[in-house]
Order: sequence, then structure tokens, then C-alpha cells
Amino acid sequence: MQLLQGLRVVEGSAFVAAPLGGLTLAQLGADVIRFDTIGGGLDYQRWPVTEEGVSLYWAGLNKGKRSIAIDLSRPEGRELATDLITAPGEDAGIFLSNFPGHGWLSDERLRERRPDLVYLNIIGNPDESTAVDYTVNAASGIALATGPVGSLLPVNHALPAWDIATGLNAVIGILAAERHRRITGEGQFVRLSLADVAFTLVANLGFLAQAQVSRENRPPLGNDMYGAFGRDFATKDGRRVMVVAISLNQWQTLVRATGIEEHLPQMELAFHADFTKEQDRYRARDAIAALLSPWFEARTLPEVRAALDQHGVCWGPYQTFTQLIDEDWRVSTANHVFGNVDHPGIGRLLTPATPLRFPEEPAVAPAAAPLLGMHTDEVLVDVLGLNDTEIGKLHDTGLVASMVPLGG
Amino acid sequence: MQLLQGLRVVEGSAFVAAPLGGLTLAQLGADVIRFDTIGGGLDYQRWPVTEEGVSLYWAGLNKGKRSIAIDLSRPEGRELATDLITAPGEDAGIFLSNFPGHGWLSDERLRERRPDLVYLNIIGNPDESTAVDYTVNAASGIALATGPVGSLLPVNHALPAWDIATGLNAVIGILAAERHRRITGEGQFVRLSLADVAFTLVANLGFLAQAQVSRENRPPLGNDMYGAFGRDFATKDGRRVMVVAISLNQWQTLVRATGIEEHLPQMELAFHADFTKEQDRYRARDAIAALLSPWFEARTLPEVRAALDQHGVCWGPYQTFTQLIDEDWRVSTANHVFGNVDHPGIGRLLTPATPLRFPEEPAVAPAAAPLLGMHTDEVLVDVLGLNDTEIGKLHDTGLVASMVPLGG
Repeated sequence: MQLLQGLRVVEGSAFVAAPLGGLTLAQLGADVIRFDTIGGGLDYQRWPVTEEGVSLYWAGLNKGKRSIAIDLSRPEGRELATDLITAPGEDAGIFLSNFPGHGWLSDERLRERRPDLVYLNIIGNPDESTAVDYTVNAASGIALATGPVGSLLPVNHALPAWDIATGLNAVIGILAAERHRRITGEGQFVRLSLADVAFTLVANLGFLAQAQVSRENRPPLGNDMYGAFGRDFATKDGRRVMVVAISLNQWQTLVRATGIEEHLPQMELAFHADFTKEQDRYRARDAIAALLSPWFEARTLPEVRAALDQHGVCWGPYQTFTQLIDEDWRVSTANHVFGNVDHPGIGRLLTPATPLRFPEEPAVAPAAAPLLGMHTDEVLVDVLGLNDTEIGKLHDTGLVASMVPLGG
Repeated sequence: MQLLQGLRVVEGSAFVAAPLGGLTLAQLGADVIRFDTIGGGLDYQRWPVTEEGVSLYWAGLNKGKRSIAIDLSRPEGRELATDLITAPGEDAGIFLSNFPGHGWLSDERLRERRPDLVYLNIIGNPDESTAVDYTVNAASGIALATGPVGSLLPVNHALPAWDIATGLNAVIGILAAERHRRITGEGQFVRLSLADVAFTLVANLGFLAQAQVSRENRPPLGNDMYGAFGRDFATKDGRRVMVVAISLNQWQTLVRATGIEEHLPQMELAFHADFTKEQDRYRARDAIAALLSPWFEARTLPEVRAALDQHGVCWGPYQTFTQLIDEDWRVSTANHVFGNVDHPGIGRLLTPATPLRFPEEPAVAPAAAPLLGMHTDEVLVDVLGLNDTEIGKLHDTGLVASMVPLGG
């Protein structure tokens, strides 16, 4: 089910948020055309890279798109990109970008060319000053609520969560604006600030309300859950697992699986607690964990798995990335969301499609990223209707480039 | 600009992902009706709570929705909820849920009643076994790539990033399916697994490709960025800041602002490095940080701010949640994305609207969450067209409930 088949989105982007937005649309069947300057943008060589220097980062975020390489340093190149962005078609005229929305990429200039353009522009701070995931995360309060109990030092997260949320919000903005255009004929200039995304989410999740109401900051809790029972345990074979009991049912399955039931009435008395209440389990969490730890320490991960799964406990092992690939069926071709795909210049990789699942398979199959400029000529024909002579001239003057596949 | 005005979404949910999806739609103008069982669902009392026990978590994630309370333990109550989900209307017939999609909430049963239903069902694992943000994060590899250099222990993040990404992906699924229905008339049953969202994102970001290609796992890097220069520094007044230099321009502004330029040629020779390359800055990051640290340690945060902002450096202070509210204009009414809103039973809170910004203000104003059952009668009239007598009967038999506002 290629829900967005026919939709055409032009992407001018770098790094995570905007490319992830385009990727998300492509994985639902949209024709996403990313333009880059000849030689590649700021993110073209970003780590991690293969031994040959091919960026796995770029390859991951640009899968299933078409790539056109244009000399954007020249006015004629910028004019060509403008032609692409504003090309006609009911399902076209959609531009996703985190480039500065000024000069040739100002909404005003682009909208002169196509009044019903849907233009989603990602910015850093609301005043357009620079911000990236790392600086926004530092400001968000989350880094000082992460890490060991008692720690006063911030802990950065390895996941660019704010970039992810911004890229997905950009897709939401585009789809909502395109719907509005389909109904009313009106285009839209939508701006999305990375900082706004982060801070509105921190507010939506109650962190800010808690600080405002109580004037207290939620402290770092190590690997404990906040407000319910959940924490990590070490197993006999040197692994660690995360165990969660939010609902009463989850708590009861954990109690049954680990056999701690007989100790609980006395412990409830000791804490004046009622362990059928999640808040009471949270308050007594260290004592509950002390009851549970010996059970985990006496068992290997396979033994823990068998016992917890038998009772339907909500838990999961901590895994490295290689363990995730080697040991977890959810990241394998046994899960239809993943397939093995040949990536030019890289090789065969386990590659995801959209996580949105449709009964009517196949959805859009997992795809590789293009090489830079791989679709230059094709896009010039398809979107701008240029003929061979015109395209030849653009190549001769160095205004566009196609890249020969590596090793080709 | 209320982009989604007129769209009606029925939400049956608990916790973060599905409620955040509904919130995101409501903040764009959709009419989102959340139904709960009388007395509230599993998340109705979730921490943080006020001294009076009102959940700031629930209030944060259900803003701007309408609430109807139905006795879902009785067949007639489930029938009433089914009526809501499948009520007619071109812009209706959209159901967002993380409840098990079985029995009365099976796609088959609901689709009998409305064949063009758009049904987005959030599940834990792809095989429908239980998974929550914490267990998925443990498995994702990210927790073992977070924390101090050299650490072998996993570090959980205080932000439920996977829940966020799942809620936003659910909105994308709904908008894409609604677009498809608008064009073709066909409804859609879309399932979205929290685990799939997490692991496809870990793949999209290159973590898995790196592990697959090199068989190495990216180690925890403390607060360092991976692949470029970025890390935290302590200031004279006991604060910490995050400084990032990914692009060449960002690096040059940092060098100029801190005056380390004269030391760089020798250091480049020492490392056989060229600091115009981000990868070389990454390799020499500890030495570069040693050059920069004294500059930060000699300055207070206001002095750091003045100097770095003057040169346009990409940086940000670490802040607690209270500092974010007290010291950062981005989380204040100076930023139009936030407003002061009275929340029933809680009080006045700084409250966000959608982060999507439109030139044509106002967008949907920041709103409070309803009290449970606050719109029960209104929804029964608007959506199901019931009259006073019929509604009276539902109340008399205890099938629905309205909640009197706290203190009202």
C-alpha cells in the first residue's frame, strides 16, 4: 500500500531532521527528489563512514529518494532548483528544507513562482539563530534528569531525539498543509523550529508543569522509571535486563514469575504501602529491587527469558547494536519491516522500510540511498520536461552533474 | 491557520504514544474525542501529580481534546464507543488507539460498521507481545552507547523518545491514510509497532549499518558528539555549556570567539591533522577541548554567552526544567508557541500550542486538557445526534458519566 504514491516532494537539506522527513515520505511511496550542490552538501561525508569513505549516515537518511546534483553557487543553478521546487502538478509543489529561507529560497520568491506552494522550512531557534539537537537537548532539562542517582553532571543521549521529532513533525506539517491545499487550493508557508519541537514536547510530557507547580526538578533516577516500578537488573551471565511493571497486571506477572509474593505483605507493612498502587511500588522501589535482584543474579539471560516470557512479564534485554542484529528477530528479515538490500558503494545491509504496516502487502520495499546525482538526467526529463540537447548543455556548462556508480 | 479543522478523530488510548498522536492532531485544529472508561484509564493518575492528586502527565498529553466517559465493561458501553468510532461523515471515521485490536476493537468488527474507516493501531512488538519505551530502548543499542567514556553499564534516557516517535508516526499514518481515502474512497487498517519505530530509526541513523559493516559498536562518548567536534564545558560560575562545531563555519566562529587560533597550527602538526576537516577535529577532540577549557573556566555563563553569541557560535547552556522556565525566552510568552492557560484543578501553566508555525496567526491557541467526561453530553449530541431523553437514560443506567469540574 503506497499511500503517498504520486505525491512529489523536493528536498533541499542536510543532517538529520529534514532528510528524515523526506525519507519518511519516500518510505510511504512519495517521489522525493533531494537536490544537492555538485560534490555533496555538508552531510555528504558525515560519520560513520566505510573504509572507503562512503557515509553510512548519508546512506541511511536518504534511502529511496532521487538525487540531482546542481551547481548551486551559480544563479542559473539556483534557478534550476527553483524550477524543480515550483514545477506544476496537483501533487507537486511541495518543498521541504532546512536551508535558510532567505534570498532565492525565501517564501516570497518561491511563492511568486507557485502561489499554492507548500513550503516546510525547518529552523533552529524561533528567532532563526543556530541550534542543533545537542544544544537544544542541553537546554531542555532532560540532560540533567538523565544519569546516575545523585549526579549533578548532565548526560547527553546518543540518540538525536529532537532531530527525529522535528523531522516527523515536518512530515505532519506537510501532509496537513497538503490536505488543506487539496480542499481549499491554498498553499502554506510553515516553519518549524527544532527548539520549539523540543520544548513543547517537554511541556506536553509534564516535565515543565511539574517544575512550575512544585518548583522542583525531577532528578536523575539512574535506570529507574519515574512514578512506577521499572529498573535494570544484572543476570548471572553478565547481561542486563530492563523490567517494567506499570499496570497492575504487569506487576502481578512479575511477582508470579520471580516468586517474591510471600515477601510482599511484610514489606507493604514496613512501608505503609499497598503494592497494588503503582505510586507505592515506586516509593518502595529500592526495597522491591532488593527482593528481585537475587532472582536475576541466579539466572542466565536465556533462563530469565524463558521464565519471564512464560508469565508475560514486560521486560527486555539490554543489547549492543551487534547483539540487536545478531540476536533479535525484530531486526531481521523474519520481521517484514526489514529486508536485505544492496547499497551502492557499501554492500548488502539489513535495511528498513516504513514502520507503518498495511494488511495489503507489499508496502514500499526497503530501498538503498541513491548515489549523489544518480537521477540528475531522469529528474530533468520527468519534472522539467527537458530534452537531450538541453540536458547536454547543462552538463557541458557544468551546471549539473551525474555520478557514475562507484566501481561502475 | 487551523489546518485540520473539521477532521474528527476518535481516540481510545493510554500512556504516551497514542495520546501524543491525538494531541498533535488537536493542536492542528482537528476535533479529537478521547473516550475513557468511567473513572479513567490506566494513565489517569500517572505521575507527576499535584498535591491534590491531579495528574500533570494526563493534563499535558490530552490538551484540547474532548473527553467522554463510558462504562466500557458493559456491552452497551462498547457499542456506544463503536458508534462514535464509526459515526458517518466525510471527515470522520478515524480511530487512533493503542488498545488491543481484538474483540470489539478488531478491525473486522469496526470495518463492518464503516468500511472506509481509517484505523491506526499502535502495538508493542511486531508480534503484538508487550513492549514499552523502556524495554525497546534497552534493546535498541542506544542505552549502551550513552554515558561516560569507558562505561559498560547502560544509561536510560529520561525522555521517552520512542514513544514520541511512535505517536508522531501514528499521526503521519493517519494523515497519509486519510489522504488516500479522500482520493480513492478506500479506508485503511494501519498498525504501528513501538519496536519497529525504534529499530527502523536506529537503522536509518546509521547505527546498525556501522555495526553490520565494521562489527563494532559505537561506544559511549560521554557528552562528546560523534564524528565532529562538540562537547560540554564547565564555566566559572558552576554552570555547564554544550558547544558544537560541525560545519567549517561553526568551527571558525568557535576558534575566533575563544582566541585559540594561534595554538592550532602546532596542534595540527602534532596530530597530522587538518582542522578544516570535521573528522580531524573529532580525532583530536580531547586536545582541542584542553585548549578550550581554560577559556570557559575563566568566564561566567553571562560572559560566555556574550562572547559566543557575538561570534555566532553554536552553543547552549545546560538547564534544569526550572531554569528553562525562568531563564529561557524560548519557553515564555515571548515565544508565541507558548501561552498562559488555566488548567481545571491545576491552575495557570505555561502551555504549548503546536510547534508548526503559520504566517497567518493565530493558529490553534494553547489549550487545557478536559476533565474526564467533560464533553460526554456534548459529544453524544454532536456526533451521535442523541436527544436529551436518550442522554438522560444513558446517565440513569450508569452507561456514561459527566464529571463536574473540580471545585465546581
